[in-house]
Order: sequence, then C-alpha cells, then structure tokens
Amino acid sequence: MLKVGVIGCGYWGPNLIRNFNGLPDAEVTAIADLDEKRLAHVGLLYPGARKTTDHLTIVQDPTIDAVVVATPMSTHYPLGRQVLEAGKHLFVEKPMATTSDDCRALIDLARRRDRVLMVGHTFIYTPAVRKIKALIDSGELGDVYYVNVQRVNLGIFQKDANVVWDLAPHDVSIVNYLFGADPVRVSATGRCYVQHDLGIEDVAFLTLEYPEGRLAHIHVSWLDPNKIRNTTVVGSRKMLVYDDVSPAEKIRVYDKGVDVQPHYDNFGEFQLLYRSGDVFIPRLDTVEPLRVEAQHFVDVVAGKTELMTTGVHGLRVVQVLEQACRSIKEDGRPQDLAYAL
Amino acid sequence: MLKVGVIGCGYWGPNLIRNFNGLPDAEVTAIADLDEKRLAHVGLLYPGARKTTDHLTIVQDPTIDAVVVATPMSTHYPLGRQVLEAGKHLFVEKPMATTSDDCRALIDLARRRDRVLMVGHTFIYTPAVRKIKALIDSGELGDVYYVNVQRVNLGIFQKDANVVWDLAPHDVSIVNYLFGADPVRVSATGRCYVQHDLGIEDVAFLTLEYPEGRLAHIHVSWLDPNKIRNTTVVGSRKMLVYDDVSPAEKIRVYDKGVDVQPHYDNFGEFQLLYRSGDVFIPRLDTVEPLRVEAQHFVDVVAGKTELMTTGVHGLRVVQVLEQACRSIKEDGRPQDLAYAL
Amino acid sequence: MLKVGVIGCGYWGPNLIRNFNGLPDAEVTAIADLDEKRLAHVGLLYPGARKTTDHLTIVQDPTIDAVVVATPMSTHYPLGRQVLEAGKHLFVEKPMATTSDDCRALIDLARRRDRVLMVGHTFIYTPAVRKIKALIDSGELGDVYYVNVQRVNLGIFQKDANVVWDLAPHDVSIVNYLFGADPVRVSATGRCYVQHDLGIEDVAFLTLEYPEGRLAHIHVSWLDPNKIRNTTVVGSRKMLVYDDVSPAEKIRVYDKGVDVQPHYDNFGEFQLLYRSGDVFIPRLDTVEPLRVEAQHFVDVVAGKTELMTTGVHGLRVVQVLEQACRSIKEDGRPQDLAYAL
Amino acid sequence: MLKVGVIGCGYWGPNLIRNFNGLPDAEVTAIADLDEKRLAHVGLLYPGARKTTDHLTIVQDPTIDAVVVATPMSTHYPLGRQVLEAGKHLFVEKPMATTSDDCRALIDLARRRDRVLMVGHTFIYTPAVRKIKALIDSGELGDVYYVNVQRVNLGIFQKDANVVWDLAPHDVSIVNYLFGADPVRVSATGRCYVQHDLGIEDVAFLTLEYPEGRLAHIHVSWLDPNKIRNTTVVGSRKMLVYDDVSPAEKIRVYDKGVDVQPHYDNFGEFQLLYRSGDVFIPRLDTVEPLRVEAQHFVDVVAGKTELMTTGVHGLRVVQVLEQACRSIKEDGRPQDLAYAL
Repeated sequence: MLKVGVIGCGYWGPNLIRNFNGLPDAEVTAIADLDEKRLAHVGLLYPGARKTTDHLTIVQDPTIDAVVVATPMSTHYPLGRQVLEAGKHLFVEKPMATTSDDCRALIDLARRRDRVLMVGHTFIYTPAVRKIKALIDSGELGDVYYVNVQRVNLGIFQKDANVVWDLAPHDVSIVNYLFGADPVRVSATGRCYVQHDLGIEDVAFLTLEYPEGRLAHIHVSWLDPNKIRNTTVVGSRKMLVYDDVSPAEKIRVYDKGVDVQPHYDNFGEFQLLYRSGDVFIPRLDTVEPLRVEAQHFVDVVAGKTELMTTGVHGLRVVQVLEQACRSIKEDGRPQDLAYAL
Repeated sequence: MLKVGVIGCGYWGPNLIRNFNGLPDAEVTAIADLDEKRLAHVGLLYPGARKTTDHLTIVQDPTIDAVVVATPMSTHYPLGRQVLEAGKHLFVEKPMATTSDDCRALIDLARRRDRVLMVGHTFIYTPAVRKIKALIDSGELGDVYYVNVQRVNLGIFQKDANVVWDLAPHDVSIVNYLFGADPVRVSATGRCYVQHDLGIEDVAFLTLEYPEGRLAHIHVSWLDPNKIRNTTVVGSRKMLVYDDVSPAEKIRVYDKGVDVQPHYDNFGEFQLLYRSGDVFIPRLDTVEPLRVEAQHFVDVVAGKTELMTTGVHGLRVVQVLEQACRSIKEDGRPQDLAYAL
Repeated sequence: MLKVGVIGCGYWGPNLIRNFNGLPDAEVTAIADLDEKRLAHVGLLYPGARKTTDHLTIVQDPTIDAVVVATPMSTHYPLGRQVLEAGKHLFVEKPMATTSDDCRALIDLARRRDRVLMVGHTFIYTPAVRKIKALIDSGELGDVYYVNVQRVNLGIFQKDANVVWDLAPHDVSIVNYLFGADPVRVSATGRCYVQHDLGIEDVAFLTLEYPEGRLAHIHVSWLDPNKIRNTTVVGSRKMLVYDDVSPAEKIRVYDKGVDVQPHYDNFGEFQLLYRSGDVFIPRLDTVEPLRVEAQHFVDVVAGKTELMTTGVHGLRVVQVLEQACRSIKEDGRPQDLAYAL
Repeated sequence: MLKVGVIGCGYWGPNLIRNFNGLPDAEVTAIADLDEKRLAHVGLLYPGARKTTDHLTIVQDPTIDAVVVATPMSTHYPLGRQVLEAGKHLFVEKPMATTSDDCRALIDLARRRDRVLMVGHTFIYTPAVRKIKALIDSGELGDVYYVNVQRVNLGIFQKDANVVWDLAPHDVSIVNYLFGADPVRVSATGRCYVQHDLGIEDVAFLTLEYPEGRLAHIHVSWLDPNKIRNTTVVGSRKMLVYDDVSPAEKIRVYDKGVDVQPHYDNFGEFQLLYRSGDVFIPRLDTVEPLRVEAQHFVDVVAGKTELMTTGVHGLRVVQVLEQACRSIKEDGRPQDLAYAL
C-alpha cells in the first residue's frame, strides 16, 4: 500500500486526492494547503487523511512514500526539490517548472536519489489520445502531415502565468507523444488584451516545426466564451478530429474518398459537395484519465511498468514554452530548439 | 440593359453567367473559353449568347459594355488590361492579379479610362459577412480582439498557385472588410506535402497583425478530408462563430455570461462546465451571394451606388499574399506591410 | 428520344422539367399550367418547349410519348385518366390519387392500355434510402424491429389536403419499401390547430403495424419552426439514423457495443455514459434523386428495367393514408388494412 | 438537522445518499440494502452512516426523521407504508407504486399521519424543465399545441417492469407539470422484441390527449444504441427543443420567422430553405438536479415551502401508465382517464 501525501488542494488537487485514494494499492494519508477553508472542505470528504497548512510535515513524514505536488507552477521546483531531497517519489503537475534549468535540476536530483519523477501530463493517459496514437502508429492515417489544435474558452485569468504556460503544456505534450519526436523550431504570436497592464498574454498562436517537415499549430486563448478543445491530425490517407468537449463522439476519422469534380452548373450542385469519404467514430472507454494516471504512478513506483511522462518529457514541453514566449516577445520571429538535455 | 461578355467558363464562370443573366438589367451576350467542350455545354444552357474560343472578339465587340474575367489567376492581368484598354468595365475574379505591381497597373488604367474595376471578392456580398460586419459596427461584440479562420478541405491541387493564393484571398478580404483596416505585418508557415517536387504549398498558417493590436489568424489547407469554413471573431463582450458549411446555423453569437467557479470536488462537476452564456443564432437571408455581387456591379456601372470591392481592396489582398509567401520562404520570419498604394 | 409533356409547373413541376430535360434520351417538348405567370417564368428557362394553359393540347398531342402530372393531388386522377386513355405513358406525382378506388381505376386503365404508370415516390430513388435498404437486406442491422420517423417543419398550410396526405406519403412509401411489406393495421391521432375551422389536420402521429410484429411510427407536422427529417431504423444488431437535412452526414449507423454497468457513485460517472458502440457514417453519392427517378421512368418506358414505384406501390400508400385518417376521425381507434388489390 | 435513512443503494440510491448528505441541514445516518457488497462499497464512501441489511432497523429507529425509498418499484408500496406507519416522512422514488390503488393508500396514510409524502420525479427539479415551464407560462411560445418526446437508449432490460413503467414516468410527470393539467385519454402501442417470452415491452409509443385539444406523444425504448432524450414543445409563436443529452445546449428556442416562398427553379434554392427564424439557446444553471430535489424535501419537512411532486402528482403518473399499458394490451385502443382522486 503506497502512502501518498498531497500538497495543494485548490483547483486540481481534489481530483488527484480522490483518484489516488480510490486505488486498491494507494492511500492518501496527508494533505497540505495554505488555505484552511479548502483544507476543511477536503477534510469532510476524506476524514481519514491528516490535514496541515505546513507542507514540510508531509515532506518530512517518514511513513509517506510519495508526494503529489499540485500547487501553482512557480512552486513546482522548490517543492519538488524538497520532496526528492527527502527521498520520496515525486508526482508533479504540469508544467513541470517555470524554467528548463529548474526541470533539469529536478531530473538530475531524481536520478541521483533514484526516485520516480513523474509529470502530470494527464492527456497522455486519456483513452482518446491513446486511441489517436494507436491509429497513427498502425498506419491508419498514412503519413501524418500536420496537427492543428484549438484549446480556447473563457478561462480564469492567471496572474502568475500567461495563456501559453497555462494551456499549451497539454498540447505540446500530446503532439510530442503522438509524433514520438520533439519540435526543432517554434514561432508564436500573442496578445495581452485583458491584462494589458500586467503584460500577460491571453491569446496566442504557436507554430511548431517537427523533424521530417511535420507541423503542429496550437491556438490557445482565455477569451473565447465557447469552449473548444479540438485537435485535428491530417495524414496522407485519412484525417482525424479529436473533440474533447463532445461527450459521445470524441474522435472522428475521415476517409479521403473520391475526388470532387471541378464543374458545377448551379448553386445547388456546388452546395452538395461537402464531403467525399466515410466517417468512423470509434467507441472509447469511459474511464477517468486521472485514475489511469494515478495507477500508472503507483505501478511505476512498484517497478511494474515503465514511466511514460518522465521528467525529460516534462522538460521538453517547458523548453518549447520558453522559446514560444521568446518568439512572442520578438514579434513572431522563429526560435530554434536544441536539446542537449 | 447592360451587355456583358464573360471570359472563362470553367469552375466558377458558369455561376457568374447564370447570375448576370438572371438580373433584370443585364444580359450575357457572349461567352469565351479555350475549351470547346465546356463552351458547348454552357451553350446548351444559354442558347442566346454567342460562344467563342477567341476572347478578343468579346474584348473588341462594340456592343458589349462590360467584361467578366473568370480565368486562371495568371491571366487576370493581361486579360484585364485588354478589357480596360478597350474602354469596357471590368469585373475580375480574385485574386486580382499575381503581383501587386500588376494590380496597381490595372487600377491606374481603370482610373485613366474612367471605367469601373471591380474584384470578385464574393464573400463581401454574403448575408453572413454583412451580418458580422453589422454586429461589429453596432458594438454588439465589444472591442474586437482577434479573428481566427479555418478554410480547409480536400481541395483540387492547383498547378499554378499554392493554397495561400487559392484560398486565403477570401479571408484576407473578409478580415480587411470587418476590421475596416489593412494588416501591418504578416508571418506565415507553409508546407508542400503532396506537390513537394513542384514546391507548391498545400497547407499554411498565416498570422496577420492589424493596427491597434488586433490579430487575424488564417489556416488554409487542401489536405483535409473534412470541409471546414470557420471564422471566429472574439470581442470583449461577445464572441461570434461563422460556420459557412452549416446550412441553417451559419452565425452563432456567444454571450459571456457569468464566470466559472474555480473548485470542483468531482469529475462530474468539472465536466458540467462547458459554457457560461446565452447563444443566439440569427436568421440570415437565403439569397445567393453571387446574385448580390452581380447586381452590385451593374448598379455601380449605372452610377447608382459606390463600389465596395474596389481595385484597391483587391490590391491590398494581393499585397498580403505576397508578403505571406515571402514569410513562408523565410521560415516564418515576419514581414512588414506598407501601403504607398 | 422520349418526348415528354409536363402538366403543372408550380412548386414541384420545375424540378421535374429540369431533370427530364437534362436526360440524354428525353426532352420536355410541352408544358401546361393554369397560371400564365408561372408559365412565362418557366418559358424563360426552357425556351424550346411549347407553353399552354390548356393541358388537353398536351394530352392530345400525337408527338408526345409520355406525360408528367405534377398538379394538386385532387386532379391526379382525372388528369391521369385522360393521359392513359390517350395512350400515353403516365408519371404521376404522389399521392397517386385521393382515394384508393381512383388508384385502382388508374392501375386497371394502364394495364388495359399497356402503358407505364409510375408514381413519383422520389425517396425510393435517393442514395440514402437505397443505402438503408442495402444495409437492411445485407443483415447488417440484424432483425429490424421498428422504424421511427419525424417529418416536421413550418410547412405551407394546404387547403385541399391535411398534413397526413401532404407529408406521410413519403414515409409510408419508404417504410413499405424498406420492409418489403405493407402494414396490416394503422392507428393515428391528429389535430387541427391552425386551420381549426376548416377541419384540416396540421399535426398527426401514425402507428403502423407490419407483419411479424414490426412497427413504424410516423410524426408529421406543419407547425414546427425547425425542419426535421429523421428516420430511425432499430435492429437487433445495429441502429441507423437517416437525417435527410444533414448535408454531409445523412446516414449514421450505430453499433451496439458493450453493455453499461449499473452502478455509479457520482454524477460525473453517470453523465459519462452516453453511448456504447462505434458509429459509422457512410459516404453517399451526391446525385440528385429526381434525375435518377426521371431516368428510371425513361428506362422503364424503353423496356430496359423493371418499374419500382408502380401503381400498386402508390395504391398501398393511399390505402394506409385513408385508414389513418379514418383512425384520426375515430379518436385513434386502430384500423385494419386488407389488400385484395 | 434532518436525520435521513436510505433504503436501497443500487443504481440510483448512491446519488440520493450523496446529495442528501451534502445538504447543510440534513444527514444520512443509516443505509439499508439486501446486497452486502453494495453496502460495503457505499460504506467506504460514507463511513459515518450505519449500514444494515434489515431495513426495519431504519424504519423503527426513533432518531430518524425521514426515509428515502430507492428500491425496485414493486417494493415502493410496502416499504412506503411501513415508513409512514412508523410516523416518518417519506421520499419515494418514481414510479410511486405499481398500481393507482397503492398510490391512493399511501396518500391517504400520509394525510392521516400528517407526514410529508414526496415522489422523486427528479426532472421537475432540473434547470431545463424549470426554464421550459417559465417560457410557457410567460407566453413566449404562444399557445402550446403539442409536446413530442423521445426517450430511448440501449437500456438495461428490467425483469419486473416494462419500458413504459421504466422510462415514461419521467415524461408524463414533465408534461403534466408543463401543461398544469392531466391527460384525459391515452392510446399506446408496444412490442416485446427482446424479452418476447416474458411479455415485457421494450419499445412503446404513447399518445396522450390533454384538455383543450393539446397532445403529448412519448416514444420510449430500451433498444436504441444511440441515447436520445429529446422533448419538443410546439407553440403558436415559437418552438422549443430540449435535448437532455447535450452538455452545453440543452434548450433551443426557435422563432417562426418569415414564411417560405413556394417556387424553386433549381435544387440549390430548394436545398437552401432549412429554417426561417432566429434561434436562442439560453444559459442554464449547472446545479445538480438531485441536490435541488433533496433540498426541496428538507425544506418541505421544515415547513419552509410547498411540496411540488406530491403524492397526487405521483398518482396521476401511475394512472396514465396503467391505462397506457391497458391500451397496449388492446392493440392501441384509446383509454379514457378519469380522476376521482
């Protein structure tokens, strides 16, 4: 039975507590948060766990095997460092840290202490992303040309991170996973419409260039009243659309079908030409992704499986975000990406 | 009764012939095309019009008042020049020409000869785009922040133009019209996946910067098996989505509504938070846009109204396309846009 | 070359004229209508055809081989009778006539004169209905249990027919074709909301019982501001939804998939359970159904193929409508259907 | 603080436990179920409540104020009777009982003991149904003509109830509430496709006639692989569609708009005519309906508000179901409904 401590129970933490607690071979024994009201609320739901406003009592608790860090991103590095130095396994939310140097430091520390360091890139554990990966790897889509992502809604305006750091980690992580590669160049344009005085971007467009000419384009925004979570993967044989907001039809695979004829005598014929191939909507498991993710962490700690969202995976994401933000500052000038680690 | 000659009856020409012919105060009296088979086919539909493979017999026909040029883009300039030099009014399809210098030459010629020069940017004449313009101008959306466009489908791979020249003219024209302004900078990334050897881009992402910090992002592609024609306009008060493929719900206006609360105890609550405001779907007229456009041309020639899609409008579009393609060649480096005319 | 005369060019007639005229082996040589304005309008589009307000000049024209009757339903029988008695082939719109006795008289007359009598049940010639028939016959859906139809929109309120006679002919024809059988009993409930004083039903619900326990339920209405044309076919293996209003996804085939588990601990899990199987959306041909229908008539006259929508098919539809209306008058009491012919 | 006992924690009970437990002025202190495994599972989630397989220990517990009965419908009456006789308030799931006589006995008992008797018709407590009621009562829809309901999916095949008793209680309850009236006649057709040998209907079509000529039509099925929960309300001014499966757009209000013109010259014009008015999609609260329902029960017990889903409301629903099933047995013959209580 893995004893787990959780630091942070604001927006995302309660979901992690609930899922780790629901596993047969794990148990959340302590929960820390600076906000006593949140702590009291979570205490009602999980009466068995110890509650504290001092996270160090968790870090230093010898009965605790692993610590989940679900706090604001600026604290990921200092808290993660404390956890690893105390010899505990670390599950840290995305983005892994606010700089690639900090990411490298955590990776290095975990190696030296021989502890598991997993980054909470949840989407890698969703049935939808797994299905897309399987469809790509099986050749079903043919050669994959490009990926186009929209991740927009009326978001909470963060004070300590722009929209790129808030939303793009999901998509960079997903595309790196799908392509099995890291981008070699990124360009980005962003704007600070609402928090103009703070200089915090609330909308951005990123273009990532991958090896072999592949592209990924990512549009993130906190300004859109309609929530969209759309990922399109275009291949030489088929195309796939992943709509994460759709309850029942998350993935649609579009076949190419026959070509369209070039001449139309009237508006009606012209209007008829909407699509030319079959569409297939596969059934997906309805498992909660966080449960899969939590179980994966427990299994990795137990040596049963190999870690998927490693520290290096988390680092690569942060490196892309860093260079994307540099491109924004330079009015869209492309930035190269090199990975000496 | 305006006597109209039409040069080119391939993909788009027949639609123009049908609409000009259906006007009460215009008549298509001559049609030219190099392809005798197309000419014979169109002849069956319009037995009253003269058919010819020599377009010069139209240009030089003294009974013809105006000529419609609906040929491949590389011929727009030489044909347009002949028409204007012959003292006839000119309706030329978009893009107006393949270089901004050629556009300027046509504008200059039309001024000197005092003839109407209209560019066929059809979307400016659609009920949907007119409605969006009205919603923006009325302040309904608040300050408009940015526009995001997807114009993708399984297209006909052109041999004499890339996807930017083929599809983006629509969107640059629309956004310039909506913003009442021209972009000051453009960056773009493109790829030649299918026609790699010819070096013709089949997918591209364009970012246009407008005055006052406004952005427009345009994604064009010939590679997507699912046809998408989506334009999102995000403002400080509301957001609007224009789906040109939807038969009955082309425009949706999303209100902002209340803010979302930041804490969720379970996956269900989290899943519930899809949208926070009302949605309004206005009824649109079902008029055929080409008919409005054709009537507009006839009215302008008759001095009844002021020209909307002028030569300068067409030139501005071509200038953006030129610089976007330069940016693609320079791996996405942003290109400034200046308009001395 | 089949010489065709068309009587009636109001709502539907022009579509028939255009399609018959577009066939390589047919030609509309004469058009009749009582409304001179409609006649003049159609004359502009088809200058080669003779126009007349006296349909008898078509019926008696020895150069005409076949006559299309596209007039109000109350005139189908007298006009059809004249056409057949004049020894011409007859294409008559649905419903075939206003009573089953009149239908029988036309069938009898056509047999005696050895002329083709085809009823214009267009849907039998659509790619969608053909595809559904193929899916049923192949066993793809398993045993077909029932069909449920909604055919509603803001309709034109007829003065000479209720909504059952106006809209249900389509669906009775379709279901009879899909099941390869005729119903044995019908019950129906209807209401006259808008034309209450005229006693003309504008909404009705019909339940048809077919052999082997199969059911068809049909909802027709002129009152619904949103146009719906939905046909659901539920079988033991799969289910199919045919949405005739959808431009690109007319047919969706739903697989059964796995069963759902009966216990849920929270609202989120409960909400997740929307669907349990794959969905398949086959590509359909974009041919215009009326063209297929017109070509079928010409081919039948030429002896090239066997007639699909025969007089008996049209009669069966009328018999069901008659008994459905009787059930409405008797407050929903079921009415048996027997077919001695 | 209201002390609540819950009998039954199978499919629906856990949702009731969770919601009653989450109220500030109620507490679930005891839970009964015959299945020890379910009991153990729920015990983990609610460690503070007493668990028992003998429901009588709840009924007879003097510290318990109110009992929630969420067991199979055949036990609603005997259990409800015991609860009321023990002098406790009763919340009983729908359908209230298996016969109208049993419903009347419970109503009578509750009156004599002066206890609250509430039936769990949850939909009356949803934001969507409340919104529809408000739209109808405000006159927004004009005179309401009819309601059409589809409630179908791949259901769990019950052994002790047919699809009418399983699913139609929701809709009869909703329509009675919306119309503020009870139906005067019902006809129904049903079929036992899958459980043919048991004679348990798995699909049915019900037609309910209300005062003033209003209609409600209800289609229920366990056989449809695609889940549909659609309620259409058609009025003289507007129409409303309530799609309970849609996460973000549950209610759409369709305006009538202008009439369509009756003549079309080509297929394109014809295809364009999909809809003629504006559409409005109001924002709805995202509150969980069961929480509202649970709070309502607690408030009624505390005398703070008037009971909405009374025993009589539950009885009226059962009376309709009884007569609908009689109509099914008599091949669709309409059955009158009289309400002497």
